[in-house]
Amino acid sequence: MRVLGIDPGLTRCGVGVVDGSVGRPLTMVHVGVYRTPADLDIAKRLHQLEQAVEAGILEHRPDVVAVERVFSQHNVRTVMGTAQASGIAMVVAARHGIPVQLHTPSEVKAAVTGSGRADKAQVTQMVTRLLRLTSAPTPADAADALALAICHIWRGGAQTRLQAAVEAQSLRTSGTASR
Amino acid sequence: MRVLGIDPGLTRCGVGVVDGSVGRPLTMVHVGVYRTPADLDIAKRLHQLEQAVEAGILEHRPDVVAVERVFSQHNVRTVMGTAQASGIAMVVAARHGIPVQLHTPSEVKAAVTGSGRADKAQVTQMVTRLLRLTSAPTPADAADALALAICHIWRGGAQTRLQAAVEAQSLRTSGTASR
Repeated sequence: MRVLGIDPGLTRCGVGVVDGSVGRPLTMVHVGVYRTPADLDIAKRLHQLEQAVEAGILEHRPDVVAVERVFSQHNVRTVMGTAQASGIAMVVAARHGIPVQLHTPSEVKAAVTGSGRADKAQVTQMVTRLLRLTSAPTPADAADALALAICHIWRGGAQTRLQAAVEAQSLRTSGTASR
Repeated sequence: MRVLGIDPGLTRCGVGVVDGSVGRPLTMVHVGVYRTPADLDIAKRLHQLEQAVEAGILEHRPDVVAVERVFSQHNVRTVMGTAQASGIAMVVAARHGIPVQLHTPSEVKAAVTGSGRADKAQVTQMVTRLLRLTSAPTPADAADALALAICHIWRGGAQTRLQAAVEAQSLRTSGTASR
């Protein structure tokens, strides 16, 4: 399974592509950060981000896109841009028919370090070790995106299948999805 | 000037298209609501919304898209979906090269009623009167979208031109927009 992890953001959007399956070694395929200029208006920043995510999906052809779930409790100044960036990531995936799964920061931390309250340094250290990298991925957003992909590989598969089954059932019951 | 006003939301996204200019009568071209099913996963809801906004832009060819600015202080349970929906509206507009302008709810209320603290009934009443409609637009999201478009026609033009000038200056200064 190939997973594209996305740590959404307008200023820095971390992306990491990992191949793997439960019980098998993981392989890092790609890691990077998409940036958009802070002095551009938000619609144009979102459009640049859309184009970058689109290019990433076309290049790496992931089976699943794993996106960090954004909470409104976080930094109030930046949360709107983060939420909008996550919406863009999701819609690009959906447009390509690729399933999207959201994971909370604590699910991601728990998956890679064993503790939902691990700090950024621990997450980066474990990501580096699990992917057998010779140096830690930087910046933190890039490491977080890889951690998201790993989290999905280890715990997300069952969730995705369950969700697809629930939706299929729901569509059968309601006839068609109305707008 | 033709303005597409969008009151973003996942469950109900109000849209209203108004033709007009400062000091001239306003004409309603279209009003409606896009809905997405609550039992569908969020990525697919955003994708349905994207397709609806895309179709609306292609049908009505607005000169500007005016979107309600989302604040994180609002209803915490729904604000993430609203922020993501607003991001989708903005990115579709940007993709078509249409300028996007955000207006706060109090700017919109002040523009159409004279008071930034007007209630929904007052806004609906003024929208009905200003557009010379025989009955009030429903639901409230649809009236809000029309109010956004009117707000933009009356106060947004100068802002859009200022913003374009600032960006053009900024691009000249920095050479190219780096990602």
